[in-house]
Amino acid sequence: MELLKSHRTIRRYQLRSIPDDLLNDILECGIRSSNTGNMQLYSIIVTTSNEKKAELSPLHFNQPMVMEAPLLLTICFDVNRFKNWCLENSANVDFSGLLWLLNGTIDSSILAQNICVAAESYGLGICYLGTTLYNTPEISRVLHLPKGVIPITTLTVGYPEIVPELTDRLPLGSIVHFEEYKNYSAEGIKKMYSFKENLESSKKFVEENRKENLAQVYTDVRYKSADSQFFSRKLVKMLVDQGFVFE
Amino acid sequence: MELLKSHRTIRRYQLRSIPDDLLNDILECGIRSSNTGNMQLYSIIVTTSNEKKAELSPLHFNQPMVMEAPLLLTICFDVNRFKNWCLENSANVDFSGLLWLLNGTIDSSILAQNICVAAESYGLGICYLGTTLYNTPEISRVLHLPKGVIPITTLTVGYPEIVPELTDRLPLGSIVHFEEYKNYSAEGIKKMYSFKENLESSKKFVEENRKENLAQVYTDVRYKSADSQFFSRKLVKMLVDQGFVFE
Repeated sequence: MELLKSHRTIRRYQLRSIPDDLLNDILECGIRSSNTGNMQLYSIIVTTSNEKKAELSPLHFNQPMVMEAPLLLTICFDVNRFKNWCLENSANVDFSGLLWLLNGTIDSSILAQNICVAAESYGLGICYLGTTLYNTPEISRVLHLPKGVIPITTLTVGYPEIVPELTDRLPLGSIVHFEEYKNYSAEGIKKMYSFKENLESSKKFVEENRKENLAQVYTDVRYKSADSQFFSRKLVKMLVDQGFVFE
Repeated sequence: MELLKSHRTIRRYQLRSIPDDLLNDILECGIRSSNTGNMQLYSIIVTTSNEKKAELSPLHFNQPMVMEAPLLLTICFDVNRFKNWCLENSANVDFSGLLWLLNGTIDSSILAQNICVAAESYGLGICYLGTTLYNTPEISRVLHLPKGVIPITTLTVGYPEIVPELTDRLPLGSIVHFEEYKNYSAEGIKKMYSFKENLESSKKFVEENRKENLAQVYTDVRYKSADSQFFSRKLVKMLVDQGFVFE
């Protein structure tokens, strides 16, 4: 399927807005995806206003596509709607455990990806904002999310202004294991990462950040342990405040 | 996009196996999907042997499609490969926090959904096995997963023997919120769930399980609080044993 194989993350968009019927069609494709028990424990918050974009922008660390894209979709794990239905029916629901947080994250992600594929099939481009999980309490306030609704990921959507080159991937054979996981030898690791390490862009990263190698750019610059711990604690606190249990 | 809108979960498969080049093509579509920092923190375990299927089957509560489907794909969040690469490069990586568990779950799910769309575009059918998260330690043992590799979801894949009717969904308007989340009134909830409640299949569920209404079938039969707590605790324990931190 050529569409899937030619996927690029789009970070620069045309001014052109997305017609309502096209948006509806894309969202409809989203909710047709598989989900746990057909409970549809998710919600989609559509942002098109400049006011809301301006409030969300710093929470996504001012990545320019937040203001530039005509459309932002914040995909949320939502137990609020289902709980309300249960309350109306004298039914007692418990989604407080890690199992449900992960189920909800899976279902929200599957929904998001169907939206992406649908959008791309109509010539639109998308970008996932992983920053969503860094600032869930603040995003929740901006979008007026009630208790039980957790932002999982955000998509920027619009007509591509610039279509970048296809990014690299590890060889398929290094991701796929047959029947049992075959652990990697040092030699194997070296081989499978060599293409990535030798890209001009990688070499530039290493140089600009004055690191010894690409792995250190990831661990010391892009995804630092201190940041990971800070944002993980923030996320746990937010979820515990919401009634989730991690024990 | 008609393909996405006509998605059905396939639980009955033909005996016909899937050619290797088709499998490769589908997996290639999977790894072209977006992922955090292009670190590809996932692995795919391919199961086609009857021996492995027989070991996995009880861990998926003996759902018949595990033995019947020619192909099982267990999609895992994998920090092992990346960590090995970092070790080779004197780089110190820390993915132990909840942020990374959720990032990895999102990336694995996006990958899984791309695989599903690719498979369906070739006339194959799929079923997500949510049971994967119920038995992660046991599945890890069967598939020889090392520390740092967590099974997130499993797909059964094959040529459909029986294609069921399209399942119901809540009206799109009840999932989508514009600019801000609009909480639901009791009246609104009643209205949006009435189609589902009045399906013949729903009425049959209620009757067979001797419950007052459909919500109670979900909460008292299908997704009981005691089960949720039991499997959540099991999941937390497994992840803590693997070095994850939930505080």
